[in-house]
Formats: sequence, structure tokens, C-alpha cells
Amino acid sequence: MTSAASTSSPADGFTRMAPQTGTGFLLRAGQVLTVVDPTGVQVSDFFAFSAEDHGEWLSSGRTIDYGNKVYFTTGDLLYSNRSRPMATIVEDTCGRHDFLLTPCSQQTFDLLYPEFEGAYHPSCFENLCLGLEQFGVEPDEISTTLNIFMNVWTDETGELHIDPPTSKAGDRFAVRAEMDLHVGLTACSAEKSNGGVCKPIDYAISD
Amino acid sequence: MTSAASTSSPADGFTRMAPQTGTGFLLRAGQVLTVVDPTGVQVSDFFAFSAEDHGEWLSSGRTIDYGNKVYFTTGDLLYSNRSRPMATIVEDTCGRHDFLLTPCSQQTFDLLYPEFEGAYHPSCFENLCLGLEQFGVEPDEISTTLNIFMNVWTDETGELHIDPPTSKAGDRFAVRAEMDLHVGLTACSAEKSNGGVCKPIDYAISD
Repeated sequence: MTSAASTSSPADGFTRMAPQTGTGFLLRAGQVLTVVDPTGVQVSDFFAFSAEDHGEWLSSGRTIDYGNKVYFTTGDLLYSNRSRPMATIVEDTCGRHDFLLTPCSQQTFDLLYPEFEGAYHPSCFENLCLGLEQFGVEPDEISTTLNIFMNVWTDETGELHIDPPTSKAGDRFAVRAEMDLHVGLTACSAEKSNGGVCKPIDYAISD
Repeated sequence: MTSAASTSSPADGFTRMAPQTGTGFLLRAGQVLTVVDPTGVQVSDFFAFSAEDHGEWLSSGRTIDYGNKVYFTTGDLLYSNRSRPMATIVEDTCGRHDFLLTPCSQQTFDLLYPEFEGAYHPSCFENLCLGLEQFGVEPDEISTTLNIFMNVWTDETGELHIDPPTSKAGDRFAVRAEMDLHVGLTACSAEKSNGGVCKPIDYAISD
């Protein structure tokens, strides 16, 4: 039994994504997307396109470049590949998120999780594809995600360390859209990134 | 006068890119691209698409994920967004390259270099666009580049530090293509990333 089974209902106005699932939606300019970790120690992958033109997409590289940092929090901007602000982080009670790694995919499990022996595994990439399909997004267009609540750090040799998220039950992360966005969002499917158990994620959109 | 003016000719078989320029070419599977810093302290941005299908492109996120590191050197694989090896690093006499930042663009200079007051500035992004245009690549398709010889590190707070490249005159970095590639390559245009002066880059393709 996962932690999810013992979690109470989401707060009013919030939608719960079951463990290892995802969704997609329109977030209009000015609207705020709030992502809540209801149980603690759970990652949520976020990706976005300009709703007007999918040629404009969330760019980890431009965001890292212009922010001059790899950890983002309240007040920071998320930039598109065209160097325009797509969203502003307006709330963050956790303080640790990752913008280096791609969403987990079937190939992630094939390459990095030999214990699954190549069997089908739910993944953020598949769930983002499914969530964004309604807007005509092709899988090849999904690039590096903002991995909300994901706890990744590098040592001085450049080696990555993926530790359990530091998020506690009820931790919140919110962005305000700076343009109309098509958003993909997941409750991450990779056991090792989530303290060993995949759990739900709650989200809400407010004006 | 830049260092470029006092640099001797490239070695036999090598082509010299003038400071703040770039190029594009087909690199067939099995061929080796060797990039040389002829003067030292100069960055070269590298990006690639599968020549058969530009929907498959160099992915910093997948490369970082599967390599479990942010610094890449001899023996490491460069992955595509489809999780397939695009190239293998087969030689590296420098040991410090960046895969976090996007190519410098006009907006980079507008946002980060106020001393240029928004004036036109050559950029790796423009030069990659020009170099890859012959293959039908659209600017929006160019994502995070491998920034050969670029010296970027993060401190424990996640802040980025961009120091002068550690490359010395004659340092080499080479990749073997694992599939037919359309490659864009530059002599980086950003003064601050190159010890204050933009210099040439030499490259060669061998079977």
C-alpha cells in the first residue's frame, strides 16, 4: 500500500492526480497554478508551451542562464526558448526543485533501473505526452522539465546526487502565467526520485 | 587587436572559424569531429540533429540524466531527446565544458550585458541558425548547446559562476558521431565567457 491510500482528500478547489499520472490544461496569462505535495517527498514535473505557438517552449537553458542559478524560487522567472518570461514563481514553501533532468521515460527505466528488466513502467514523459496531446503537442517537442520538489545536487566533480525530496506534506509551489500557456503536469513515476514510493500531487488554477 | 590576429594558421586538415562566427555541416556516423582551441581560453558551442529527422536533437537533460553528471569527458555519450546516443566523446585534453547554458543570443546581450545598450551583437545563437539553415533547421529548434571549453560551475547555493575557460592553446575535444548528424558549431561571441576577448576555433572532420 502506498502513502497515497492513507492521504486525505485534496483541499477545496484542488484536483488530485493519482500516483504516476499526469494532466494537461490551458493556463491563461495572469492565472496562478498552485502545485501541492499532499503527502510530502513527491516530485511533480512541469512543462509548458506558448498556447499561441508551440514553437515557443519552456527553456531550462535560458532560465538557468538569465537567472544565473540552477535552483529557482519565489520571484524567479521561467523563460522560453525565445527569451521571454513564460511564468513567474509566486510561492514556494519547499525551496528545492530541479531544472537539470528530463522527465523520466520508458528509456530512463530501461537504462537506469535494471531491476525492471525492460518491462513497461509509467513515466512522466508518457504522462506529459498524454496530457499535452489534446493541444497537438508531439512527444519530440517536450524538452527538459522543471521538476518541482525534486532534490538534485551536484558535487564538486559534477556528479549528480538525487536525494528524496525535502518537501513536507502540504508544501506549495505556484507560478503565475506571463502568457497563455499549454501546461503539462505530473505526479512523478520514478520510485527512486520520490523516496521509494510514488504518491499523488494536487493542483489548482486560480484567477 | 584580438589574440586571433597573432595566431598562426590552423593545423593541416583543420578549418579556422573567425572570432564570433559559426558553421554547419553533415557529420556521418563513424566520422570524428575534432574541435581545437588554437589560442586558449575560447568557447565553442555545439548542437546537433539527427540528419534523418530533425525531430531528434541533442538533449542536455537526457545526457545529464543518463550520465549522472554535468561535466562530460572522454568516453561519455551525448544523448538525443529520444534517448539514443548521438555521439561519443573520444578525446578531451581540457576537461571542463558546460552543458547547462543556452547559446548566447541577442537577448543574452540585451539582458545580461547592459554596457552594449541593446545594440546588435554577434551571437552563437545567430551563428548556429545561419550554420544550420542550409539543412532547414528553424531557430526555435535549437535547444541547449554543449558549450565546449566553457567553464561554468555552481556553488552550494546553486549560483552559477562563469570563469574564463581553462583551455590552453592547442587543447582538443573530439566526438565520434553515432548516427548521421547535422551539426552547428561556433567560435563563441560572448566576451565574458572567453576571458574578455573572442578568438577563433579550429575544427576538422576525419573518417
